[in-house]
Amino acid sequence: MNNPIYYAVVEGGGTKFNCAIVDEQRNIHVSHRISTTTPQETIALVCDFFIQQRDLGFTFEKLGLACFGPLDLNRGSKTFGCITATPKPNWSHYFIVEHIKTELNCHVELETDVNAAALAEYRWGASQNTSVSIYITIGTGLGGGVIINGKPLHGLIHPEIGHTLIPPPEGIEGVCPFHGNCVEGLASGTAMSKIWQQPAETLADDHIAWDIQAQVIAKLCHNLFVNFSPERIILGGGVMNKPNLLEKVRDYTEVSLADYLALPEGVRLEDLMSMPGLGENSGLFGALALVLQE
Amino acid sequence: MNNPIYYAVVEGGGTKFNCAIVDEQRNIHVSHRISTTTPQETIALVCDFFIQQRDLGFTFEKLGLACFGPLDLNRGSKTFGCITATPKPNWSHYFIVEHIKTELNCHVELETDVNAAALAEYRWGASQNTSVSIYITIGTGLGGGVIINGKPLHGLIHPEIGHTLIPPPEGIEGVCPFHGNCVEGLASGTAMSKIWQQPAETLADDHIAWDIQAQVIAKLCHNLFVNFSPERIILGGGVMNKPNLLEKVRDYTEVSLADYLALPEGVRLEDLMSMPGLGENSGLFGALALVLQE
Repeated sequence: MNNPIYYAVVEGGGTKFNCAIVDEQRNIHVSHRISTTTPQETIALVCDFFIQQRDLGFTFEKLGLACFGPLDLNRGSKTFGCITATPKPNWSHYFIVEHIKTELNCHVELETDVNAAALAEYRWGASQNTSVSIYITIGTGLGGGVIINGKPLHGLIHPEIGHTLIPPPEGIEGVCPFHGNCVEGLASGTAMSKIWQQPAETLADDHIAWDIQAQVIAKLCHNLFVNFSPERIILGGGVMNKPNLLEKVRDYTEVSLADYLALPEGVRLEDLMSMPGLGENSGLFGALALVLQE
Repeated sequence: MNNPIYYAVVEGGGTKFNCAIVDEQRNIHVSHRISTTTPQETIALVCDFFIQQRDLGFTFEKLGLACFGPLDLNRGSKTFGCITATPKPNWSHYFIVEHIKTELNCHVELETDVNAAALAEYRWGASQNTSVSIYITIGTGLGGGVIINGKPLHGLIHPEIGHTLIPPPEGIEGVCPFHGNCVEGLASGTAMSKIWQQPAETLADDHIAWDIQAQVIAKLCHNLFVNFSPERIILGGGVMNKPNLLEKVRDYTEVSLADYLALPEGVRLEDLMSMPGLGENSGLFGALALVLQE
């Protein structure tokens, strides 16, 4: 039997870079986590890992990179393939694609982590056969990617859904340094920890924080429904693993939309909102979807 | 010289139906306004008008209909071409396409009024050569259409951007019967008249209402920028004709986004927001764009 065609995939986040060698059938042959430090150090370790894998026989010609943003994804731009202005120290204006390409001598496909995850869910996960779908991740940060007719939405730059404004819950002050009460400032894991002055994961199941969290995410979902008219909103990320949180978000979204949307016969709002079909792997498989997409 | 090819176009609104015979070059050969009453009466008058025009030599085979919603635009649906659940008396579940088609024996292309206007602006107006553009109308109601890669956004139904939630301005209560503080409930002409207890058009230029109006629309624009990453937001409709309102909206949008967006070099946020390029005719020419699009 022939060897499968291997692909190098990277999910680049603010905390860690997940690297793996995968094949078209989404078998993960080897994987490795690298802490996110400076871009020079991090990318050197990423490239070292893949050079080792090549030496071990995992040859590849394409690397998919699902990366935190903001990114310059405009092929006509002088700074294409660059991380643009980010508050993350040292990463602003780093030519991530160029560096990896030079080091590994391979083709690199870049996309935002959330657009890539949305693409993977569209291809293999919870939003197959939709014309419009959205993937939201609620973890350390809060962001979203959008797939329209099978393609990630870019526009001028790319969506920054975490910075959507909503009516804030009474008595709560959001902590986004740019916008205060945007959803990232109210509902990311980091925001929850600051607002409630304890790590989000230590908040008891019956803490009021979870009810407020559900209301905030529901208002985001309300806005996504009336803006994009999606056939699926996927809610992923560590924070969404809280038991019953999805159900609460569904309930509050129903309350918020107040039967305004004239849904097609047989469609229930709650069925349009789900967890990822690919579990923790939406981002990594998103990087694979990028290189398979062309 | 041959006669041009004529098209029948209709912009159907809650107050009036604008009907016209136009050609591909956007010459309006004849036009007529019909008050919106019951669907039976209104559509009978619309059809009478076009039958008369045919008798006068304006033969046409296609009619473009840019109509208020919500609409069923799903070609696979049993209720395709139907106005769905609307609070407008008598119009719910009216098969508008079917009625016009039968009466005039012609092909009918249907789209929401705002998606059609967005399409006309994309084709001939202020959002030419964009990959993502949005047309917002602020008049009696407040709504928006979205064009992505030359096509109106539908998804499950179609966008209902007027029902976007935003943090409400202090001391103001929105009047949307479904959502209270959605932008339609805060900033449509009807909402302004209710909130300030006088017709919006009689509010003096220096009334605080206009400053608050600009803040509300700016927050909508903030959300549209971070959701869609549009290359152009067009702000149309009667309310936007207020002198200096666009400038104020631009200023407040800059303040709200707080330099978060990493805009491409040379792009200024204010240049991404403008009035319609087609003036009052975005909707009518949108109906033309529909029949030319196929």
